[in-house]
Amino acid sequence: MCGIVGVVGKENAPEVLLKGLEKLEYRGYDSAGLYVNDGQGHDHLVKRVGRISQLVAAVGPEVQGTMGIGHTRWATNGKPTIENAHPHVSNDERFYLVHNGVITNAAALRAKYLSDVPFAGQTDTEVVVQLVAFFAREGLSAKAAFAKTLSLLEGSYAFCLADRTDADHLYVAKNKSPLLVGKGQGFNVVASDALAMLQETDQFIELNDGELVTLTADDIAVENAAGERLDRAPITVSIDAADAEKGTFPFYMLKEVSEQPAVMRRLISRYVDQAGAPQFDQAMLEALASADRLYIVAAGTSYHAGLVGQSLFEQLAKVPTEAYLASEFGYHQPLLSAKPMFIFLTQSGETADIRQVLVNVKQAGYPSLTLTNVITSTLAREADYAVELAAGPEIAVASTKAYTAQVAVEALLAKALGMVKQVPAAAAFDVAHQLSLAATGQQALIDQQEQLHLLATDMFGKTRNAFFIGRGTDYFVSLEAALKLKEISYVQAEGFAAGELKHGTIALIEQDTPVVAFITDPVTAARTRSNAEEVEARGAKVLRIASASLAEPGDQVIVDDLDPLLTPLLTIIPGQLLAYFTSLDRGYDVDRPRNLAKSVTVE
Amino acid sequence: MCGIVGVVGKENAPEVLLKGLEKLEYRGYDSAGLYVNDGQGHDHLVKRVGRISQLVAAVGPEVQGTMGIGHTRWATNGKPTIENAHPHVSNDERFYLVHNGVITNAAALRAKYLSDVPFAGQTDTEVVVQLVAFFAREGLSAKAAFAKTLSLLEGSYAFCLADRTDADHLYVAKNKSPLLVGKGQGFNVVASDALAMLQETDQFIELNDGELVTLTADDIAVENAAGERLDRAPITVSIDAADAEKGTFPFYMLKEVSEQPAVMRRLISRYVDQAGAPQFDQAMLEALASADRLYIVAAGTSYHAGLVGQSLFEQLAKVPTEAYLASEFGYHQPLLSAKPMFIFLTQSGETADIRQVLVNVKQAGYPSLTLTNVITSTLAREADYAVELAAGPEIAVASTKAYTAQVAVEALLAKALGMVKQVPAAAAFDVAHQLSLAATGQQALIDQQEQLHLLATDMFGKTRNAFFIGRGTDYFVSLEAALKLKEISYVQAEGFAAGELKHGTIALIEQDTPVVAFITDPVTAARTRSNAEEVEARGAKVLRIASASLAEPGDQVIVDDLDPLLTPLLTIIPGQLLAYFTSLDRGYDVDRPRNLAKSVTVE
Repeated sequence: MCGIVGVVGKENAPEVLLKGLEKLEYRGYDSAGLYVNDGQGHDHLVKRVGRISQLVAAVGPEVQGTMGIGHTRWATNGKPTIENAHPHVSNDERFYLVHNGVITNAAALRAKYLSDVPFAGQTDTEVVVQLVAFFAREGLSAKAAFAKTLSLLEGSYAFCLADRTDADHLYVAKNKSPLLVGKGQGFNVVASDALAMLQETDQFIELNDGELVTLTADDIAVENAAGERLDRAPITVSIDAADAEKGTFPFYMLKEVSEQPAVMRRLISRYVDQAGAPQFDQAMLEALASADRLYIVAAGTSYHAGLVGQSLFEQLAKVPTEAYLASEFGYHQPLLSAKPMFIFLTQSGETADIRQVLVNVKQAGYPSLTLTNVITSTLAREADYAVELAAGPEIAVASTKAYTAQVAVEALLAKALGMVKQVPAAAAFDVAHQLSLAATGQQALIDQQEQLHLLATDMFGKTRNAFFIGRGTDYFVSLEAALKLKEISYVQAEGFAAGELKHGTIALIEQDTPVVAFITDPVTAARTRSNAEEVEARGAKVLRIASASLAEPGDQVIVDDLDPLLTPLLTIIPGQLLAYFTSLDRGYDVDRPRNLAKSVTVE
Repeated sequence: MCGIVGVVGKENAPEVLLKGLEKLEYRGYDSAGLYVNDGQGHDHLVKRVGRISQLVAAVGPEVQGTMGIGHTRWATNGKPTIENAHPHVSNDERFYLVHNGVITNAAALRAKYLSDVPFAGQTDTEVVVQLVAFFAREGLSAKAAFAKTLSLLEGSYAFCLADRTDADHLYVAKNKSPLLVGKGQGFNVVASDALAMLQETDQFIELNDGELVTLTADDIAVENAAGERLDRAPITVSIDAADAEKGTFPFYMLKEVSEQPAVMRRLISRYVDQAGAPQFDQAMLEALASADRLYIVAAGTSYHAGLVGQSLFEQLAKVPTEAYLASEFGYHQPLLSAKPMFIFLTQSGETADIRQVLVNVKQAGYPSLTLTNVITSTLAREADYAVELAAGPEIAVASTKAYTAQVAVEALLAKALGMVKQVPAAAAFDVAHQLSLAATGQQALIDQQEQLHLLATDMFGKTRNAFFIGRGTDYFVSLEAALKLKEISYVQAEGFAAGELKHGTIALIEQDTPVVAFITDPVTAARTRSNAEEVEARGAKVLRIASASLAEPGDQVIVDDLDPLLTPLLTIIPGQLLAYFTSLDRGYDVDRPRNLAKSVTVE
């Protein structure tokens, strides 16, 4: 839930760190800090509460160095204060540490080893850096003290450790939290996400849990827990750095919403052959085909995409499919079928709640597939199979194009699996044509953004709550549209199965309560309209979003016709834009909503 | 979503009708009305917007009659106005009709038959009464005109029809909506629920869809659609009328919350034998045992009980179980297993959303079981098997004792099924002892109600929103506790899987946002505490409700230890009482919240 960076062997270390932190701000932005050392007896520790820009302003020209570490924090345990900001420093001021993760046995370790050591604060990270200093005072080298400390820790971490007395080395380790080392020319870097260091290098080395890495300007020494040096070649990361620049858009979110038609077309060209048939790794399709039940495990927006996937796999591939919340599945696993297969949906590929499930699944020997936007991520590497969403970097915290990419890739996979299993419904489902129609329909909606802005102002300008209702896939998109509004405009919105609202929650409907109704399925359109009338009879202000062929006078937003399994690809666009404009109207930071980080790497 | 009553052959018809309507107010209370006729040329139609008490005040001593019909309305289509109140009357003022349900082809029938007839309003019910009058003007008898009309209708209905020119007869029919005829001495009555007429008789005749009944003072003539008279013996309804009186309690809800320990004990004595083994119908247990997967279908509070049941059946009987929202299942049915069995949870036994599923299930030939508090209800009669919750009449709209009774009966059934299937976990689960502990623990919590009142005032006194979090069964009880708060205090509360909140919704946490955390499962207690600290770090005001053996300093409510599968039986008590006292503090009508009816008989 935090971002860390490090560099060794580079003249302008503070600049490299700050630029990197700016790119990592999506991982948290409660406080930020850096430590740099010039190897000539000068070093600096700077920390600020707030955004990276606060830190940038605080780093004056006197702050110089060739080695350094940096951190941007999202507060999980402990308030966002200057005391809790990283880097943390040992009592003897020798070691500086940045940390992403949670050490669960910190209190016990402090009691056992550090009862005589004065502490500046209460954090688990301070316990770790004090332990390193403690073992160093007992005579161990910096590296050995770090290794000894690591052997005692329980929990999750990505660490970058600096030794004030030695500006030529940087020590790095990870467990469950993401961390990559970047290989430069005469320098080396480290970061939570390759994105942070793309301006310095495109050569990255992936680390595994339990490894300890020592960086110098010219060497990257990866060792396993037994202290044996491992040989590991770097991979080339091909993300175009420009993809992550927001250009003329006022916010990344609007840029990313606008990219969705292009993402649809990219997915067709990447995964569909000339004859219109989806192409995927054959071994993966065979694994899917031999499963008797699919378990989709995800969280947040990805879970909402998983609900749509559940219908797609059931309808097109005729394989029973269930979608689960990752945080629940990890500890309250349902009875599994005889031959289950797991599909993990995760934009970042680093979601800790899913990692916990993956560990169980691998232990039990079940096959798994990760759909992710970051193919170098932990969950992509650790699952048996991975499919890339290819949505391009998503910087705004509220996910948009990754959601529609997930739905589209699920449709492609369900079609491919249905073809393998010779399901008639799959043969009849022209997925490339449907996705192409979706791209056109999305563009038409994006082009109506001024009208959607007016609707957003009218519907949500002053409200504190709102409801989104629908049935079937319209229900699933209701959940996602409500989450968007929650995330960036802080309106307490709830998505509801249209027929379920009357079983209690309808008590909340009062004069002018906003209710958005999605109506895209011919089977249930009349019933959803009837539910909309019910809330209207109670005073609600209703906005109807309907498919063209089901539209009636008074419907305010019309989306193109599309197979009902895929209408979320269209209906979520007004959902996203209504949330965007509501946040904009209220003057919030659309891309960086309070309390949220892009990648949720704690449970 | 409405209640109807009728009487013929009784001197004080208005009094019988008004007393009956008071008992039916749980079915809706937007408007009410009655029509009475004394058979000597005098009749009266009185309607009022609002509660039954408004109607009682409006019925003066001049309103006398021996025959009459009455109605209390919950507005679904059309606003709660005097025009839309029942009884509706034909244009020629001959026929008066009360209706519970929705006629879906009313517009088409009006266009076809009644284009020349002036209408007072827009309702489907007026179309029906105008049709009867239309066919009567064409020469049919009242009964024949009614039968002809019925043959044309699509949708759901319970009707009671009065003919101004004939005070000796009353005509009755139903389709999908509940209706019972009560047999008196020299008079007969009709009502949506036996409860309404228990002060007049305990002899009731159940009606089936498509039958037409003609009531006189001395006869109840039941005919099928072909006009053949059927012979049907009355059954004795044994509900103690005193059960439905609230006695010294200020509200029914508090009475019903307080009855829960007694309900637990009643269920043990009813369903568990001397040796501690649950006893159920053998054929039903065999049907359950031969199913390869259970599908629990429910809505609202019953759905939340169904989620707990899902864990109970999976853990104790090792049969895969899924809980579904009835309104979704009816139209977007998942792929079913080879040998499914359906369990319907419904307090009233009349939930239209479930009825829709039951029709599909019966058509497909799958076995079904209804758990309901009203064993004479439609869903109890139409399912293959039924088990009574035996919670006693629940009058407050917000369900309390029916929820805990559902959970307890599910535990009894899961244990019984597990014994049949020889599952070791079932043998080790002493269900009678657990329910007995639950009763004791519930009483201890009820006895702390003054402290819970203080907590309610502190936590929810001024808030507009709130969150309830937990994992596993603590998650399921979070959903139910949130729904209680929504239903009666109009606070927008959401129940969340504790690990899921951070995936977006945590953006809503601001200074002093109330969050209630349930901590009763040793496996996840530490993680839920960590999630509680996360929101606390964002400023939330957290109330912790924990099991005794997991309690830590600062936990405000401690519940007795119980098997984690059953802790909702305890933790929901503070959930219910916090909602109750919040509603009380705010001066709301606890038992009759706005917009809600007890029994939801429309989709």
